[in-house]
This record gives sequence, C-alpha cells and structure tokens, in this order.
Amino acid sequence: MKRPRETPLADRLPATVPFVGPEAIERRLGRPFRARIGANENVFGPSPKAIKAIQDQAGDAWMYGDPESFELREALAGHLGIARDEVVVGEGVDGLLGYAVRLFVEEGDRVVTSEGAYPTFNYHVVGFGGDLVKVPYRDDREDVDALLEAARDSRAKVIYLANPDNPMGTWQDPARIEAMVADLPENCVLILDEAYLEFAPESIVPTVPIADPRVIRMRTFSKAYGMAGMRVGYAFGERSVIQSFEKIRNHFGMNRVSQIAAQIALSDQGWLGHVRSEVAMARERIAAVAEDSGLDPIQSAANFVAVDCGGDGAFARRVLEELEARDVFVRMPGVAPGNRCIRITAGRPADLDLLAQALPEALAAARR
Amino acid sequence: MKRPRETPLADRLPATVPFVGPEAIERRLGRPFRARIGANENVFGPSPKAIKAIQDQAGDAWMYGDPESFELREALAGHLGIARDEVVVGEGVDGLLGYAVRLFVEEGDRVVTSEGAYPTFNYHVVGFGGDLVKVPYRDDREDVDALLEAARDSRAKVIYLANPDNPMGTWQDPARIEAMVADLPENCVLILDEAYLEFAPESIVPTVPIADPRVIRMRTFSKAYGMAGMRVGYAFGERSVIQSFEKIRNHFGMNRVSQIAAQIALSDQGWLGHVRSEVAMARERIAAVAEDSGLDPIQSAANFVAVDCGGDGAFARRVLEELEARDVFVRMPGVAPGNRCIRITAGRPADLDLLAQALPEALAAARR
Repeated sequence: MKRPRETPLADRLPATVPFVGPEAIERRLGRPFRARIGANENVFGPSPKAIKAIQDQAGDAWMYGDPESFELREALAGHLGIARDEVVVGEGVDGLLGYAVRLFVEEGDRVVTSEGAYPTFNYHVVGFGGDLVKVPYRDDREDVDALLEAARDSRAKVIYLANPDNPMGTWQDPARIEAMVADLPENCVLILDEAYLEFAPESIVPTVPIADPRVIRMRTFSKAYGMAGMRVGYAFGERSVIQSFEKIRNHFGMNRVSQIAAQIALSDQGWLGHVRSEVAMARERIAAVAEDSGLDPIQSAANFVAVDCGGDGAFARRVLEELEARDVFVRMPGVAPGNRCIRITAGRPADLDLLAQALPEALAAARR
Repeated sequence: MKRPRETPLADRLPATVPFVGPEAIERRLGRPFRARIGANENVFGPSPKAIKAIQDQAGDAWMYGDPESFELREALAGHLGIARDEVVVGEGVDGLLGYAVRLFVEEGDRVVTSEGAYPTFNYHVVGFGGDLVKVPYRDDREDVDALLEAARDSRAKVIYLANPDNPMGTWQDPARIEAMVADLPENCVLILDEAYLEFAPESIVPTVPIADPRVIRMRTFSKAYGMAGMRVGYAFGERSVIQSFEKIRNHFGMNRVSQIAAQIALSDQGWLGHVRSEVAMARERIAAVAEDSGLDPIQSAANFVAVDCGGDGAFARRVLEELEARDVFVRMPGVAPGNRCIRITAGRPADLDLLAQALPEALAAARR
C-alpha cells in the first residue's frame, strides 16, 4: 500500500510547530507550572459576565453557532463605529491570518515581516508557499521604513506589522502608521495585527480610513478580553476585502458558546478597564523585579515585558530553562537581537511573587 | 486607492456559502423557529457531565487550549484502539476536511464525490482549485462502484464517501467499504466521513487497517455527542498521514473548554446509549408522521430521515417553505433525485408534535 502523494507544496512543508504549548513542557517536567506567564494569556480572566454566559450557554452547545456571527459582528461594528459587513469573525487572529494569507499569497509571492516577529504568521506564509522577506528590528522596534522599502524592492503582496509588537512589546507612533499606509506600494496589503492594542494607551491608536482596501486590521478576544481558550478574533477593513473571507473561511467554524460570550465580554467595558489597570501594575512590577536583579526591562504597551538578560541568546535560554525548573513558564524571542531577552507575561501578584523569588536564583544558576 | 489583487485562484472563487444558518432564516422571518430540526444537530444535547465540564472550565477560558490536544487524543486513541499519533483533532469535521483537501489537492486535481453529497466538502475542493467529478446516487445510496470507476477514469487524488450518508441517511454494507478500500486506485485517498456513525448499528462499522495510508476516517463530537456548537472533530489513520496535518493545521485553533468537554463526553458512553435510543425512536416517529401524510420515508442510519414528498424538487421546496412558515426548520437535498425529499432531523417529542401538526398543513398548502 503506497502512501498517496501530497501536493508538491504540502510535501515539502516542514513539520514545524509555531509554539510548544505549556502543557507539553509540563508533561516533560512531570509537574504543572506554578506561574503560567509565558503565552501572553490574560491571567486576570474574562469578564465575570462572560464566564456566566459560557455557563448559561453550556446546555445549548448542541446547536451550531450562527455561521454569520451576525449579532457579534453587529456588536463589534457598533463598538468600532463601522458597518457590520466591514468586520469578519474568525477562529482567533491565528485563523484569520491563515485566511488572509490564503487570499493574497500564492507560491513564490513575497511577504514582508520583521525578523523575529510572530512565528504563526510566518507559518501560514510558508504553508501557502510564500517567500518571507525579513527586516531586522531597529532599537527593539519593528522598522516601518525598512518594511516599506523591502516591500517595494521585493514587490511584496503583504506586509505584516504588529502594533504593539510581539515579542518586544514596543509600539509605533500613530502618525508613523498613518504615513506607512499612505506610502504602501501598489498592490500590497498591510496586515495590522492589533491583538495587544487594548493594553496600550488610546493615544497610540492610528486612524486608518475603513474604506482603504489595502489595510486589514485584526483584533482579538484572546488578550485584553481574557478569552484565549475560546478562539474568537476579528478582522476589519474595506467591505469588499472583508467579503472575500467568505469565499474561503470555515463558515461553521465558530464556536456557539464563544460567540455569545465574546459579545457579552465586549459589552463589559468596565471589566476591560479593570484588566488594563491590573496589567499596567503588573508591567511595573515585572520591570521592578527585573531591575532588582540588574536587568533591563523594555518598555511595553502590551500585557508582557521583554527583559534584557544582559547576555546572548544562549544565556537568555539558560535563564528561561532555570525559570522552568522553578515552575515558572515564560517564553523568549526566537532570534537575535531580541533573543537576549526573556518575555514575561503580566501576572497576578502571586505569579509575580514567584517570579521575584525565582528570577535571582535562575540568573545565578544560568551564570554558573 | 486600488484594491490589492487576490491570488488568481481566490479571485475567481464564488462567494457561495455551503449552508444558510437557521438564525439567518429566523432574522428573515422575524421570529424564532419552534422546532429546530433541520441541521442534523442532536437536540438531545451533550452529556450532563460534559455540560458541567463546560461550566466548570468557564473561568479558565483565559488559557489557550493544549495545541497538541494530548489528553483528548489519548482518550480517543483508547476509545478507538489505536495509538495517539494516529489521531488528529480539529475544528469539526468541516475544518478537518479543509485540511485534508489542502494536503492532497492542488489546482486542476480531480476529486470524486456523489452528486448531492456534503456541500461543505465541495466548498473546500473548489476553494483549493480542485475539479469535482460527481457521480449520481443509485437508489438513494452513494454508488461505491461508480465512485471507484470515476476515480480511476479521472485519476482522482481523493474520493469522498459519507457513511451513513448525508443527506439521504442511507448506509453501506461494511464488506462493500472494505472491498472499496482494497480496490482504491493508485495514489488516491479515501476520505471516509463517519460523522453519523454512532447513530448506526455497530454491525455496519467497516474494518479498515489503521496502517493503510490511503484512508482517512473522520468522526465528530457534533452529532451523537451533541456538541455541534463546540467544534470538535477528529481524523484517524496511518500515522505519517495524520502527522501531515501538523504541517498546515491551526495549532492553537482548538477551544480549550471544548477539548475538555469532549473528553468528558467521550467517557460518558451511557449518555451516548441514551441518545442513540432517543434518536431511534425519533426516526420511527418521523417515518410514522410522513406515512400518515402518505409520504415515503427513506430508511436511515443517521439522526435524520429524508422523506420523499412524492413530487419534484420544486414541490419539496414548497413543502419546506410551508414548514418554515409554520416555524419548523428543516432542510432538503440540493440536487435531483434527492431533492424530491425534505430532510428532517430526529427531534424531541415536542419538536415532532409540531412536525405532525405542521406537515399535513404544509403539504396541503404546497399542493395548492
């Protein structure tokens, strides 16, 4: 029985995984983490009203979710001040990034991103046969000018930019993004990943006309709304571009309970305010813990702080492993120069107490 | 601002939707259905233990689900008597069908299915540029010999077969499937969609060696386990084929609450037995209601019954619309000769009371 042949593209794809989950590390270590502050999850959790919605809807889980996500899109449109057909809901930003890449990228098309930026985006580009063109960070920020230049030089179909950035936590001046949009080369889409935007000051939110067909903005309920496990993201932009997702998305892919809970979460902006202030305090605490150990925290507008461990990538990797050995889960940027850092998610006071205890020990062990 | 160009494939895709959701019909009608027996959802609901699991997990929804779905796959492997790396979990069978098509079908590849079979499979094939080769049903059954012949003639990459079949509810003798597997042409994958299998007698389950790399079987928690809204399906087969899904799937796409609830649902085989017997009674009741109106029910091994309305597709469509006008949601097969039928999902007694009342009225109105 010969194995049937995959497509030539599928056949040559590597069996890589964008991220190893904390559960896999726990299985390897043989015990659970005591502080789960590595995946930029929102440890402060969903709105209590959203939790209640999940519980109330559990018995109705036998019904498919509305494939049009009509009510959630209506609520998002109201929230964003746009029309319902200018927003599409998907299985997290990860799912929507896959759809966007599939719409615009075919084999051999170039796609521009930053060296060390979100690996899951790269996974989708490679998965659809695109060629990644990577631009270095400059001063721990994504380099907007260099991204634009690379896109022009390579005649790229897509530019990816996260604002605030992951994994560094830095952000762009809104005027810089607005100028970038104005300067986009012909036939190039900007995917603006704003997964962490709600953690940032409102003053950094750029103004992009919704009618501009060259920009797709993506946001999520996974971060500030505390519902990573429920898989709800959304993309918004010019209506004909948003309508194109209908040609390829998994129409019945949206969890019914998640849709309803997301709508409730959106309506509870008071809880969002609470989360924002908890996250701001946690960022300060992480910075203080880092500085107490003589390390440099990088200023962040997201729910995590990249902490410069003062050495190279191998040293930061040792620090991370020593934290793991002390039951603290963190992650780190994948490539230089970001990989001199470990990336610590905004935790609850108890999580950060553990961090404060474990970090000096981990550093000492890593230096040995 | 010119609209950026999509890929040539995406550009020519139609903006079709495999199914219109009942919510969209309700919005058009301006009121909710009183009997939701059109989408083959399991109205008897998830296991009460699974409902409790959803409720218990709601507060932990801030965490991503395990991207490896390790524990759920371990449980499924135990249930199926296979190894964990012979099963992959995905966002419903719909999501897994998309991944399987993407792995094996590129532009211009032929794919064989039955004329009138599952539209969502066709949607994925068209979406990846495949050419559908459609074989008519024979006596309301998928025609296994004709599927094989069409696959040989067209050098197809994939054959799709649902067993029990949707939308007709008919099924194949297990020996017939086993002979089909033995006769598969070179380099052709059989996708065996067993979404409705748990409703059928165990005696119809075919034996396919798990080491055969030419067969991918798919099952789901959406139907017999009553969790359509939670989006959990699984595919199993030869391990290197299953491993290939890792190259393209959305690794963090699985809802955390859904994964845990599915595992609990799987462990409650007592509830499954309860559902099976409720569904069997409902099938008989639907058949009796149909016969009371002089219609012919088609024998079904699934949780629905296709009822021959005794006319053409236009007549069945009128019956369906008259049922909708009486707040009863049903669906119908899309093409002749199946479209002489309406397809009624196994409902609760109250749902079928409404059906029994509405069907004679709907028939009379459709005949006027």
